[in-house]
Amino acid sequence: MLKNAILVICDGLADRPLRALNGLTPLESARTPNLNRLAKRGITGIVDTIGVGIRPGSDTSHLALLGYDPEIYYTGRGVFEAAALGMELKRGDVALRANLATVDENMIIEDRRAGRIESSEPFVRELNGITIDGVHFMVASGLGHRAAIVMRGKGLSSNLSNNDPHILGVRPHFVRALDKSKEAEFTAGALNKFLERAHAALSKNPLNKERVKVGKPPANYLLCRGAAILKGFPDFEEMFGLKAACVSAVGLYKGVALAIGMDLVSVPGATGRPDTDIEAKFRAAIEALQEYDFVFVHIKAADNLAEDGNFREKRHFIERIDRAARMLLNLKETLVVVTADHTTCSELKMHTGDPVPIMIVGEGVRADKVKRFGERACALGGIGRIKGLDVMKEILNLMGRAEIYGA
Amino acid sequence: MLKNAILVICDGLADRPLRALNGLTPLESARTPNLNRLAKRGITGIVDTIGVGIRPGSDTSHLALLGYDPEIYYTGRGVFEAAALGMELKRGDVALRANLATVDENMIIEDRRAGRIESSEPFVRELNGITIDGVHFMVASGLGHRAAIVMRGKGLSSNLSNNDPHILGVRPHFVRALDKSKEAEFTAGALNKFLERAHAALSKNPLNKERVKVGKPPANYLLCRGAAILKGFPDFEEMFGLKAACVSAVGLYKGVALAIGMDLVSVPGATGRPDTDIEAKFRAAIEALQEYDFVFVHIKAADNLAEDGNFREKRHFIERIDRAARMLLNLKETLVVVTADHTTCSELKMHTGDPVPIMIVGEGVRADKVKRFGERACALGGIGRIKGLDVMKEILNLMGRAEIYGA
Repeated sequence: MLKNAILVICDGLADRPLRALNGLTPLESARTPNLNRLAKRGITGIVDTIGVGIRPGSDTSHLALLGYDPEIYYTGRGVFEAAALGMELKRGDVALRANLATVDENMIIEDRRAGRIESSEPFVRELNGITIDGVHFMVASGLGHRAAIVMRGKGLSSNLSNNDPHILGVRPHFVRALDKSKEAEFTAGALNKFLERAHAALSKNPLNKERVKVGKPPANYLLCRGAAILKGFPDFEEMFGLKAACVSAVGLYKGVALAIGMDLVSVPGATGRPDTDIEAKFRAAIEALQEYDFVFVHIKAADNLAEDGNFREKRHFIERIDRAARMLLNLKETLVVVTADHTTCSELKMHTGDPVPIMIVGEGVRADKVKRFGERACALGGIGRIKGLDVMKEILNLMGRAEIYGA
Repeated sequence: MLKNAILVICDGLADRPLRALNGLTPLESARTPNLNRLAKRGITGIVDTIGVGIRPGSDTSHLALLGYDPEIYYTGRGVFEAAALGMELKRGDVALRANLATVDENMIIEDRRAGRIESSEPFVRELNGITIDGVHFMVASGLGHRAAIVMRGKGLSSNLSNNDPHILGVRPHFVRALDKSKEAEFTAGALNKFLERAHAALSKNPLNKERVKVGKPPANYLLCRGAAILKGFPDFEEMFGLKAACVSAVGLYKGVALAIGMDLVSVPGATGRPDTDIEAKFRAAIEALQEYDFVFVHIKAADNLAEDGNFREKRHFIERIDRAARMLLNLKETLVVVTADHTTCSELKMHTGDPVPIMIVGEGVRADKVKRFGERACALGGIGRIKGLDVMKEILNLMGRAEIYGA
């Protein structure tokens, strides 16, 4: 009987056949003895994380793979980003992603990232906790110039335009309501007032005076985008009966995990970049299996490398995943699931809608004859072609935790 | 990067294993070196054009393969047939298929096709443009005894019974409303009056007097069936961002193409019969790719041959398709997709719900190990088993034209 499960999602792992790799994908062309050993022991298949031919975002595909239908639960990236910054969101909160930016005395945008300042924290601190028209504003700092804004109050809407025009030399837009509802008008109005007040406060911030003195652009404006309202996420443990933890270094995925009630396991050396310590992440995940029924491990870098067109480094990174995957070979009481959230084509440098490989290894699975973990090898596996939302169902079933439908 | 796509739908191409062909299907038993070459280069699979085990009509399966959910858009064959006869339909029009038939002086049906007259045109001409109860009637002639009736007016319904009893020796039915709505009652009333007036006019037509003189049955009655109302079809180009053309010789498919806003490319020598010039159709399609992003080629005859039980001629026709398919081998910037709309079983002489093979060939596809284009060979391909509605999604994805879902 399986005690627990580990779900390893390698972001953007899958690819298309590349001419430069003799018609193989980076995964097919990589030396992956450990992943292949897992594939040999397990059952394999391919997954359309959203649907056949649909190009998944990383947010929607993770929701689906974790058992949350994005058609129901996805409202926008902002809520996950904010959650990832440690903000405790409540149902009805509206979250936005924000950049600290530079405007001149005529409100013309000079720099969308305020010279890529090192940390937004000392700037946004004083903006946190302002109340306007009964709406409470919370601001948290992210990496560098990044921040998140959360609005809490009655009757808010996320149907708002961005104030970020995405170009320089113009004024920021006013945030507008994108529908004619009272809620959207009200929310846009409160947010515009807040942005004005933030500009006034930031302009007076002594740190900005220092920046100007040394010739750096002042961080005196908040450009925001991606307003999203937090719908209630049913708790992962309540939905699936599995106490769950997440090992990830990247905000978005930590945000998804937090939003669905998973605990975060932080791992020194996990960076979300190609230099990340994959062994350390697997070690932490395996340790967490002592305490948790389900551990989701997210490994980011293959996606970024493919988006940079760097298919050789992608292959190299996959070989690093493989070396770490040795640690997954001896988990006797654990269902081991390895898959990807979407294909990232190194030639097109973007997410594509091609299915991703999956393998499921553990006692009781109907091991098939597939001997390699690869896009095309797994397409011939015993799982066939399933959807992202099916993955948690398969996991629950193989763990012996699925409820009977009927009698 | 792929520039465009060609979708070849071979009507009724798939079949069941036939004892007379040693347990092979006509496609499996045919010599198809060019189709096999394409299969070798591409990714293959099987498609349930509507759903697993569902026997598709040609109209519904084409809608699905072209990305239009028949559950939403299919209202009946009449609208496509009428559109194919060149009638410009508007939203809310009700269209019916009609036969010119023969009734005697007691209104008993003697011949449902008026002795399969050569052309309905000189008979229906005078029926075109009649207005009854504010409903404008348009009639267009099809091949032989066939015609289409379009009713235009306010508050029409297509929920009508047929007046065609499908047997001889009885009177035509009255058209009845199939629900209790005012609209259906009103439409049935107007149509019955029109059919009466048409009978009176046709009876007086001098051509019929001549026919009677030489012992031919007069074409003096309209038997109609398949009332359908035109819903608005979203334009193909708006839906998919692809400027599209259709190469087909047969009314129904031209009607589907017109209804969704495709341009028609007419090809001399394209007949819709086994004698059709398949090379000429492919040549025209390939030329059209200079101007269009997407060309749909329809090839009809395999279906009719199977419905006649003529499996040897079906095989022969498939070999003719194969010879023409040589022209598809050198399309470097084009995604080539070959499939069928449904299985037509030569033994049962009817459409069946077995899946059809598909192959997709072009740069970036995950070519699989399948080396033959056949029902069972493709069932082991890398695409697996998908639905008709997935085909356009796969095409958009492989063309790099799919929109991202999420971020």
